[in-house]
Amino acid sequence: MRNIDPVEDLIALLARLPGYGRRSARRAVLRMLMDPQRQMLPLADALRNAAEAVLPCDVCGNLDTRSPCHICDDPQRMQGLICVVEGVADLWALERAQAHRGSYHVLGGTLSALAGIGPEDLRIQPLLARIEAGGVEEIIIALPVTVDGATTAHVLMDRLGDTGVPVTRLAQGVPIGGALDVLDDGTLAAALRARRPA
Amino acid sequence: MRNIDPVEDLIALLARLPGYGRRSARRAVLRMLMDPQRQMLPLADALRNAAEAVLPCDVCGNLDTRSPCHICDDPQRMQGLICVVEGVADLWALERAQAHRGSYHVLGGTLSALAGIGPEDLRIQPLLARIEAGGVEEIIIALPVTVDGATTAHVLMDRLGDTGVPVTRLAQGVPIGGALDVLDDGTLAAALRARRPA
Repeated sequence: MRNIDPVEDLIALLARLPGYGRRSARRAVLRMLMDPQRQMLPLADALRNAAEAVLPCDVCGNLDTRSPCHICDDPQRMQGLICVVEGVADLWALERAQAHRGSYHVLGGTLSALAGIGPEDLRIQPLLARIEAGGVEEIIIALPVTVDGATTAHVLMDRLGDTGVPVTRLAQGVPIGGALDVLDDGTLAAALRARRPA
Repeated sequence: MRNIDPVEDLIALLARLPGYGRRSARRAVLRMLMDPQRQMLPLADALRNAAEAVLPCDVCGNLDTRSPCHICDDPQRMQGLICVVEGVADLWALERAQAHRGSYHVLGGTLSALAGIGPEDLRIQPLLARIEAGGVEEIIIALPVTVDGATTAHVLMDRLGDTGVPVTRLAQGVPIGGALDVLDDGTLAAALRARRPA
């Protein structure tokens, strides 16, 4: 087939979206081409707007339209209570859950020997700098419960040890709504070890 | 969470893509925001380019950057051999298969009592006009093998009957690579009825 270049270009770019491939990209493009004015131009504008307006917060690494971001800049929040997360997605998840009333620190990844990500690739130094600047009362480590996440937490606690700031981590256990028989052994064992008075 | 408006707008629009929801849209946006210059602006430009450059072919209904499209305009192709398809996606599939050396006619849908799509909503009249204009030697009906597709083919053959142009339809049978035991009964029965000398 002779390619229709603008369409092929668009399919190639859409196919890179997570969960998308050439087939779904083609389907999306065909559907959008039914009504380009309402389905394509608004998306083009939204992409451009977001690309131009959004930037990382210099303090915590969150993405926002300003830096410091609206969380770091909020006097209502306990700025001395810093929750350390792997990425912005985790920060957003915690915000959706309205679970944390302090501030955040985005590490930007976890240590990974396989992917060649070392401590210097993560935003550990900026976290130490925030602590040095004073006012930090507690660091909550909210990294993923994976091998890489645990390694990262370990290294992080090592570095934070000298600062004298109390470090805590998220509880591990049975998720709300979680049926016991489908849970993995590790989670079950952890929940049993961490059992509390009823 | 206080919304970051440009990001929320983009998530809402991306979530409308086929196969996408808010969760996958959020994941896509976060990944694109890692490198907006390379991941968002090219997509925005591609969407705008496609929306501005692509239009339906006045003759066959294909989507192209010009009308008549490159297929209707190709003297190498047998313009008198018209393959009738439901949508542009089917036309593209046939072109990828390099299966058809004639031209096409996109109906723009199939009849559907449920969806309220009647014969006047399909591009049947333009097809009759092409035949009236002369030079059409055969009409190949390549509509989906569904109830709606069969109804549409029936109505179409009725309308085409008066024109005297030979009408054919795609063979039905076992797909290439198709294991018999997973095929539906209808396909098996059709393949058996249409059996040919080995």
